[in-house]
Amino acid sequence: MFREKFKEGIISARDFTREDIEYLLKRGHEMMEVQSSDILSGKILATLFFEPSTRTRLSFESAMHRLGGKVIGFQSEDVSSVKKGESLADTIRTVQSYSDIIVIRHPMEGAAKMATRFADIPIINAGSGSKEHPTQALLDLLTIKEELGRLDGLNIGIMGDLKYGRTVHSLAMLLSNFEVNLYFISPKELQMRNRYKQYLIQQREVKFKEITNYRKILNVLDVLYMTRIQKERFVDMEEYERVKDFYVFKKKDLKQTQPHFKLMHPLPRITEIPPEIDKSEKAIYFKQTNYGLHMRKAILAELLS
Amino acid sequence: MFREKFKEGIISARDFTREDIEYLLKRGHEMMEVQSSDILSGKILATLFFEPSTRTRLSFESAMHRLGGKVIGFQSEDVSSVKKGESLADTIRTVQSYSDIIVIRHPMEGAAKMATRFADIPIINAGSGSKEHPTQALLDLLTIKEELGRLDGLNIGIMGDLKYGRTVHSLAMLLSNFEVNLYFISPKELQMRNRYKQYLIQQREVKFKEITNYRKILNVLDVLYMTRIQKERFVDMEEYERVKDFYVFKKKDLKQTQPHFKLMHPLPRITEIPPEIDKSEKAIYFKQTNYGLHMRKAILAELLS
Amino acid sequence: MFREKFKEGIISARDFTREDIEYLLKRGHEMMEVQSSDILSGKILATLFFEPSTRTRLSFESAMHRLGGKVIGFQSEDVSSVKKGESLADTIRTVQSYSDIIVIRHPMEGAAKMATRFADIPIINAGSGSKEHPTQALLDLLTIKEELGRLDGLNIGIMGDLKYGRTVHSLAMLLSNFEVNLYFISPKELQMRNRYKQYLIQQREVKFKEITNYRKILNVLDVLYMTRIQKERFVDMEEYERVKDFYVFKKKDLKQTQPHFKLMHPLPRITEIPPEIDKSEKAIYFKQTNYGLHMRKAILAELLS
Repeated sequence: MFREKFKEGIISARDFTREDIEYLLKRGHEMMEVQSSDILSGKILATLFFEPSTRTRLSFESAMHRLGGKVIGFQSEDVSSVKKGESLADTIRTVQSYSDIIVIRHPMEGAAKMATRFADIPIINAGSGSKEHPTQALLDLLTIKEELGRLDGLNIGIMGDLKYGRTVHSLAMLLSNFEVNLYFISPKELQMRNRYKQYLIQQREVKFKEITNYRKILNVLDVLYMTRIQKERFVDMEEYERVKDFYVFKKKDLKQTQPHFKLMHPLPRITEIPPEIDKSEKAIYFKQTNYGLHMRKAILAELLS
Repeated sequence: MFREKFKEGIISARDFTREDIEYLLKRGHEMMEVQSSDILSGKILATLFFEPSTRTRLSFESAMHRLGGKVIGFQSEDVSSVKKGESLADTIRTVQSYSDIIVIRHPMEGAAKMATRFADIPIINAGSGSKEHPTQALLDLLTIKEELGRLDGLNIGIMGDLKYGRTVHSLAMLLSNFEVNLYFISPKELQMRNRYKQYLIQQREVKFKEITNYRKILNVLDVLYMTRIQKERFVDMEEYERVKDFYVFKKKDLKQTQPHFKLMHPLPRITEIPPEIDKSEKAIYFKQTNYGLHMRKAILAELLS
Repeated sequence: MFREKFKEGIISARDFTREDIEYLLKRGHEMMEVQSSDILSGKILATLFFEPSTRTRLSFESAMHRLGGKVIGFQSEDVSSVKKGESLADTIRTVQSYSDIIVIRHPMEGAAKMATRFADIPIINAGSGSKEHPTQALLDLLTIKEELGRLDGLNIGIMGDLKYGRTVHSLAMLLSNFEVNLYFISPKELQMRNRYKQYLIQQREVKFKEITNYRKILNVLDVLYMTRIQKERFVDMEEYERVKDFYVFKKKDLKQTQPHFKLMHPLPRITEIPPEIDKSEKAIYFKQTNYGLHMRKAILAELLS
């Protein structure tokens, strides 16, 4: 059923029901036991990255290898025919001849969605512009579920660049399938766009509050999900300079949190979480990275087998 | 016999007899049935790309994987020791220690030929300067054979940049082994160089006509092979600007063609074929891409097993 | 025992005893017979190259494939999250989740050492700044041992950029475990730094002489190890221009050498060894490249199985 519904691939967090998510969380959990397998033997993953990546690309490639598959692709448009003026549509039509599934990251909003129109194989959106990054959000939910045992009933703060951060858009939409209280924490300039907020209110009846000072609610949070202020998304560099150091989580902040509190981050982080926080058991962003591998094994296995 | 003759690799379309080509067309056809195999298990392909590529590199890598082999390589000289001043000869002598076959694309004419002097393993020319791209021409012939059932007796137009286009040089030379009527269609500035024309006349007794307006002969063509005007080959940018939009195939042009007419292109295309043509069954450039995978499987299997 | 001692990986030539080296030389020799194996099946190597490479990266990747393993990684920081400001520590912590061993090349001295602090898997130093490149030195010793039958009792000249050349630092330190006579041959500006010389004298009681004119001792040498003057290590380009052509080995120099004399070079070479020398049986730098593959198979097999 999952396979049938997502036969075109994974494009937007909006496409997921609670049932879909719970199914993938179960499969991701099972994959934690799978160190090496050959269920994807004979299959080829194409990774098309038009923007830099460490975690997303390498975890998809590692996942494919761990399940017995192979990988082709490119890590920069400079080495591809895009350099000669080829359209994304033509690139997709070509690469689908050589592979069984495509993972694509592209600076343009809607790139992955468009790709599905030109491919007969599944497309996985690994980040399209500032809009969506659904597999990141799926691994975030796996992390929360594994670490806290549940999603319903949690108080979750999402902090940082809520305007341009594609991970937080996908995360908020996935979480809207559960009984959560969301806190959107950002400077005024980087508040979540209305289109997302209206969707959450009108389509999903999710409760959220928008605040600026996270310290006021730190003691009620189960999870604080921080994000990087992404220089590359700003058109106005003065705006970037003004907000880039707006949030820096302090070691003493940890003391205000509940015992089971978890601090998450999609990484890379720059200055917003100083390294001294890393040692705390409440800091789970590197564990999150590891859950990402398992979630991506689950996604590849579902879409390919 | 094929293996013995091509033990140094595939360097130039000039090396192919009709018998060689027909053998590979047969092997390419057989490979259309081979989705996954392990005949190249334990073999390593090195892809050395000194110029950008999507189709050629990825189809060779996919072909290698589909046949059970492995791949190493680089996609830009910037990440290699060429950046430190290493000669191509030294790079080849090194890489041949680590692999069983090398696919090379290089801006310099004669690069692949030179590589054979420094390697004990087969070299495949994946494009050298503006001179040759023989495996592209082999896949083009497979495409024509599979789509039209034969090569002899066809009227084939080759259009666009016939001066700098390496694919068309290799294509004309391969086709000269068959009873074809060739039409070289180009603006005056981009006519095929004399050295190729003299070779076709003197060595092969091929009939060809040079014309500028393709519409005059559209109704007699079985195949029209279009090419991109390649900005990167022009020394004089004014010349490029003058000719870049010389040919744009129009939807209404299709009406002038015979029912079995096929429009081909090595891709990438820019403006010379508008997307609205893609839907026509006469437009087979994406099928061509797919035949490329099978031809490259055949080539790798022949040279390596 | 080797595995236990080097469970953090291979970071510095200083860590090696004579026994460690002899063990790897034996394993490297055995690997010369292993063309294809599956002893590393299910294992993933991550190659993280922050500087260009041909030999080191491709030989490690080929070695991994020859032993049945898989490879992920990047060849330039431009395609990674380092581009977004991520620290090396965070990159390592992430990549170790996706792989079983990491090979890293980085412009910063101590980068590989630092990486071990953030990884639970072995790290292999594939070049860190101008300081160390231990696996190059290990393959150099394998080359000498295989070609001359022994290491003890040899007169070995190390020539070129002894100040910035990381390969020669690691080589001198490894050789200090044997009864060798070393000749450090360089222009005054590029002499080996005191810290290395003091280490050799005080810790290892190695005999060495520093000279400028290699022709004076050419007749006593068993091995001459040449290196490139590395433009990328110079801060002062005037200094580089002054010394870059200081040494050029001449064909007539060969006549001054003993019959069993061997000329080595880690490659790439630029002008310091003209191609006309290549044909001599005394020139073994391309054989050296090939020994590199076997030594790296041995290293990966030791650290991973």
